[in-house]
Amino acid sequence: MPSNPDWVKALKPSGPQGSELLAQERAKSTLNVDQLANFMFTRENLERNERILKILLADPVFDKSQNYFRGRTERIEAALARGKRLQQLSVQHKWTKEEFQVANDLISEPTPYGLHASMFLVTLKEQGTPEQHKLFLERAEAYKIIGCYAQTELGHGSNVRGLETTATWNPEDKTFTLNSPHLTASKWWIGSLGKAANHAVVMAQLYIDGKNYGPHPFVVQIRDLKTHEPLPNIHVGDIGPKFGYNTMDNGFLLLKSVKIPHVNMLARFSRVDPNTNKYVRPSNPSLVYGTLTYIRSNIVLQAGSVLARGVTIATRYCAVRRQFQDRDAPETEVGENQVLNYTMVQIRLLPLLAATFALHFTGKGMISLYQENQKRMNGDAGKLADSTGKRAPGPEELNPGTDLLADLHATSCALKALSSTTAAEGLEVCRRACGGHGYSSFSGIGSWYADYLPTVTWEGDNYMLTQQVSRYLLKSARAVLKGNAADNDTTRILKEFRRRQDIGAAFDVIGSDSDLVAAFAWRVSFLTFEALRHRDEDKQSWNSLLVDFWRLSTAHAQYMVVKNFHDALNDSNTTNQLDPETVGVLHKLFRLYALHTLEREASEFYSSAAVTVRQITLARTKTVMKLLEEIRPHALRLVDAWKFPDWQLDSSLGRYDGKVYEDMFYRASELNPLNSIVFDPYPDSKVLFKKDERANLRSKL
Amino acid sequence: MPSNPDWVKALKPSGPQGSELLAQERAKSTLNVDQLANFMFTRENLERNERILKILLADPVFDKSQNYFRGRTERIEAALARGKRLQQLSVQHKWTKEEFQVANDLISEPTPYGLHASMFLVTLKEQGTPEQHKLFLERAEAYKIIGCYAQTELGHGSNVRGLETTATWNPEDKTFTLNSPHLTASKWWIGSLGKAANHAVVMAQLYIDGKNYGPHPFVVQIRDLKTHEPLPNIHVGDIGPKFGYNTMDNGFLLLKSVKIPHVNMLARFSRVDPNTNKYVRPSNPSLVYGTLTYIRSNIVLQAGSVLARGVTIATRYCAVRRQFQDRDAPETEVGENQVLNYTMVQIRLLPLLAATFALHFTGKGMISLYQENQKRMNGDAGKLADSTGKRAPGPEELNPGTDLLADLHATSCALKALSSTTAAEGLEVCRRACGGHGYSSFSGIGSWYADYLPTVTWEGDNYMLTQQVSRYLLKSARAVLKGNAADNDTTRILKEFRRRQDIGAAFDVIGSDSDLVAAFAWRVSFLTFEALRHRDEDKQSWNSLLVDFWRLSTAHAQYMVVKNFHDALNDSNTTNQLDPETVGVLHKLFRLYALHTLEREASEFYSSAAVTVRQITLARTKTVMKLLEEIRPHALRLVDAWKFPDWQLDSSLGRYDGKVYEDMFYRASELNPLNSIVFDPYPDSKVLFKKDERANLRSKL
Repeated sequence: MPSNPDWVKALKPSGPQGSELLAQERAKSTLNVDQLANFMFTRENLERNERILKILLADPVFDKSQNYFRGRTERIEAALARGKRLQQLSVQHKWTKEEFQVANDLISEPTPYGLHASMFLVTLKEQGTPEQHKLFLERAEAYKIIGCYAQTELGHGSNVRGLETTATWNPEDKTFTLNSPHLTASKWWIGSLGKAANHAVVMAQLYIDGKNYGPHPFVVQIRDLKTHEPLPNIHVGDIGPKFGYNTMDNGFLLLKSVKIPHVNMLARFSRVDPNTNKYVRPSNPSLVYGTLTYIRSNIVLQAGSVLARGVTIATRYCAVRRQFQDRDAPETEVGENQVLNYTMVQIRLLPLLAATFALHFTGKGMISLYQENQKRMNGDAGKLADSTGKRAPGPEELNPGTDLLADLHATSCALKALSSTTAAEGLEVCRRACGGHGYSSFSGIGSWYADYLPTVTWEGDNYMLTQQVSRYLLKSARAVLKGNAADNDTTRILKEFRRRQDIGAAFDVIGSDSDLVAAFAWRVSFLTFEALRHRDEDKQSWNSLLVDFWRLSTAHAQYMVVKNFHDALNDSNTTNQLDPETVGVLHKLFRLYALHTLEREASEFYSSAAVTVRQITLARTKTVMKLLEEIRPHALRLVDAWKFPDWQLDSSLGRYDGKVYEDMFYRASELNPLNSIVFDPYPDSKVLFKKDERANLRSKL
Repeated sequence: MPSNPDWVKALKPSGPQGSELLAQERAKSTLNVDQLANFMFTRENLERNERILKILLADPVFDKSQNYFRGRTERIEAALARGKRLQQLSVQHKWTKEEFQVANDLISEPTPYGLHASMFLVTLKEQGTPEQHKLFLERAEAYKIIGCYAQTELGHGSNVRGLETTATWNPEDKTFTLNSPHLTASKWWIGSLGKAANHAVVMAQLYIDGKNYGPHPFVVQIRDLKTHEPLPNIHVGDIGPKFGYNTMDNGFLLLKSVKIPHVNMLARFSRVDPNTNKYVRPSNPSLVYGTLTYIRSNIVLQAGSVLARGVTIATRYCAVRRQFQDRDAPETEVGENQVLNYTMVQIRLLPLLAATFALHFTGKGMISLYQENQKRMNGDAGKLADSTGKRAPGPEELNPGTDLLADLHATSCALKALSSTTAAEGLEVCRRACGGHGYSSFSGIGSWYADYLPTVTWEGDNYMLTQQVSRYLLKSARAVLKGNAADNDTTRILKEFRRRQDIGAAFDVIGSDSDLVAAFAWRVSFLTFEALRHRDEDKQSWNSLLVDFWRLSTAHAQYMVVKNFHDALNDSNTTNQLDPETVGVLHKLFRLYALHTLEREASEFYSSAAVTVRQITLARTKTVMKLLEEIRPHALRLVDAWKFPDWQLDSSLGRYDGKVYEDMFYRASELNPLNSIVFDPYPDSKVLFKKDERANLRSKL
């Protein structure tokens, strides 16, 4: 590629430079960035992250400069190399699981080892017996076998009970036969299966003596340990390109009557007794639900940070980018206005900035609730065992009077759905707030958004989850009506609504924070009892209520976020660790998040009589606009507090130093392999390229 | 790539086959698909499309089977080959502009000739003199020169008046010097510039004797006609990969004091007199605004069809995909439920299905209004000439009393913003409604969505446009208050609001179609006078009102769509050409679109007192749900009426024959080049691939 001629190198952006503009921005606020960052992440973690970043930066295999230019095969080739090196570094530096995760987050793209390092190891550990740990887990931890977790099928996503793959017990030789009876039984979407894995935990319907005992996990070797070719009667491969996540080898797998020994069925919870040929029931199914709750709580916490990347990039760029003069500016004033000064940009970005903190504190809150509950659960273990047979009870079927798990589970479902939707859709808003340049790969938002999108589907499809949440809320409401409800936050707000229902609500949502939280609780309760009436009194079909359930679950999640953010700000821990100014700015973010949400969902707040039309109009035209103005000067420091290194963001627009246009130009003109090609532009010539110097380029890199 | 073993070839999807399910679907309704299609597109056009499709199918250069697998360079290489062949075919078959466009639509990805064939030719034609037509246009039409339209700069998107590139008149040798004074002056995003063009129409600030006369168009040769290398003092190239549109070579361009002759300034509207060295003013600037209005009206019409592709794919797949049993189904009923039966899927897809028709009829309506107005304008030409100097007046500055252009222009801005946002965001909803498989490239939605996204930014950024709309509405409202308003639809609804404001509105939005339309008009008028009060009485700054303006413009556009859809259904042309059953189903779609929109924007309808809380609740819980149920049986035939050939959709999920899973599997296992590679999966081995047979594959293709 020809490098830029000297006259081009001498050119600078016009007007005030990006670096000056960002320096001015940072000078507008005295918010203590490091203090806020330490409060959110701890100083130890931030130092650890820097240490790991240095290790990665020193290694050429992690060079990102060609990432955006590569096609799928080149990308997965690079990801494989990085995955290998990461594992070597992990051994060399004796990284903990958290440190390994930090390195992955900094690299910011999945590797083909992703599902080995997470679901394969976790499943072996949690669902394997000590004997199986020795046989599989130890070798997997040493990367002597590489595995994946094969549940979803071509024809079956969310509905696990509908899986078609079978595992039939053979009493004569004490083996299982794994089989894919139809094309739709093909395992599909399985991360790390397509190219990397030589083993898979396969979820299959267990059949003993013709009877189906439901889906269970089986360890199946699928590729030869030496040649890495598929074993006989196994058809396995990569499922092809996707909207994102293309450094991962999501795979397919078909099994034609493949035999595996008895020991390959993961047997910690349930098993087949090889002597009696009988099924032995799970001892404590709720522990599995606990894990799901933990995974979902982490998705909530992550969602804040996922979104914060987009908000960081867009906020920085909108402070550098100037466009049009202010229409009301005096004629004497020249120069264009920073895009971040336009209220139409603020109303898109600043509520998302507020959401990043709201989700962060909500995720933290969920994780500590989970940990608290785990302690309690471990004391109670065994109590919940299902002795009646048929199938393992879902947590929604446990009596909410006896434990908090059901409440926590429902909340984690609701919040997983809301937070991942907020992050995914928010990233797209950030991308568009960058105007035309948001569409360039160099914005760093598009690929990040595309890679994140599956989160709205996996670990429970966001729409499906809302049914579980509503089922739980209806159950709680029935218990409240019967007077035998447990004492937890959900039943408290439902009872409070019943108590004041006839008196009516008069929440001062603009003047009082606690009233604002209470208005969100009121809306949830109103929608719960309305849905209950439709279901129990009007006998409406479940299907006809799905839309109401989705609204109800969203309302519940929004209430939880508002409540958690409010609680976090009023925690003595917060007020002790942060300057009053910082707490003040966070408080404005809390109010912006809550009032902006209230206004967007105005119709439900009206219908429930939680607020008046006048209040909504006030919130919209005055309070929210005022909050935008007040938060505006702190925007840049607030995104700085998320502490994303430039290398992690990999964005021309989001550079900490504001050198946006220089970086765009550099990447386009000096890194872009397409500029090593010269077209023949005439339709009648047979030649496509007059010159193609990509080969030189490749050898240089 | 190993082809599938025989035992895999023998596998079929389980349960009822996709082809059976779609046949059942089509049998559920007797809607006359061909009649509806002929009504929408005319039979002649549909036959023409089929004829062109056959030509493309016969030519291996248009084979799409590797499209989703290719990296950027391979894609642009294929697109260049296709662009060349398309031009050859166009000459061979003597294609009209429309026929050429049909071929492009069927191929469904831009080629590097895209901006040559559109903006370059159009600009030369519309802004060139007869002498310039001879010099540039004729050669361009013969593809002897390839060009582009270079307006946007690295630092300047929407603000054309802020462009930095200069064109300085040299009286001594009667030339212009084109120069890029800063890095931000680099032309950027220019389609066909990066690799294909050897000429560019460059928009630059015209300077004569030190005075700036604003942006004007100049033809600049940028590459050698033989070697295709950049000419001296010109730095040009491709700007790199984007979120989509990667078969287009969007480019950058820097000019270092490049001299061009006098004849290279396009001089139909304004020019420099080479004898007096004086600027000669534009004779009829409003013609240019007319073109923009036409382009935007076409975006509205296209938006319906763009969205319809996604809706077609998602509707077909949701009829094939089955997941979970109906919760209320009797225990004896086995088998999973079609996803399209779930109300949560219907509420996402069917209002979008309604929107496709709403946008189609609205686009048609806009285009005939435009044509009507052009006729009238041609009679009036010359009247609008600006004799006062300074700068060309925008249409918003023309007196609405003397012509309809301002009204049409404002409406086209509002509708362009709403329709492109509806299509872009609707496509993403369609993608997610396909569940996990929507994320696969083989869904055909992701890439289509990504390619369409720039439409929300180009031809007027959607957010920026809403200011122009509001400015026009405020101006009309002021005229109404002063009593000197012109008579057009906008002033009529504003006057009607004023008349009934104190009496109050009582629209029967559920029982009466015309009341439903009137409620949308009422909301627009309410928001207009509210914004006017804020601006003129409260003296609020323009910037503080941008959010209100955006809402106002959206409300105006939604009113126009509802009104156009309503008018189309009540047109005698419609009722003559279509069966009453078809009209009946379209009528339900009209009501679904209107009531679903009303419910989503409930808060503004309340605040304006156009409807009561009770009406909204009824609309939400009863009417909309009922409409979903009634439209459901016709869904498949309605999407069939859009008549997209499978080849155009290029989607496993959207196949007309329902063979969804077979096609997914075929593409993944037999077309996927990644499956020609065998990984070495162990972190400590130095080798990445044990085997790489892609080369064999390439030579085969």
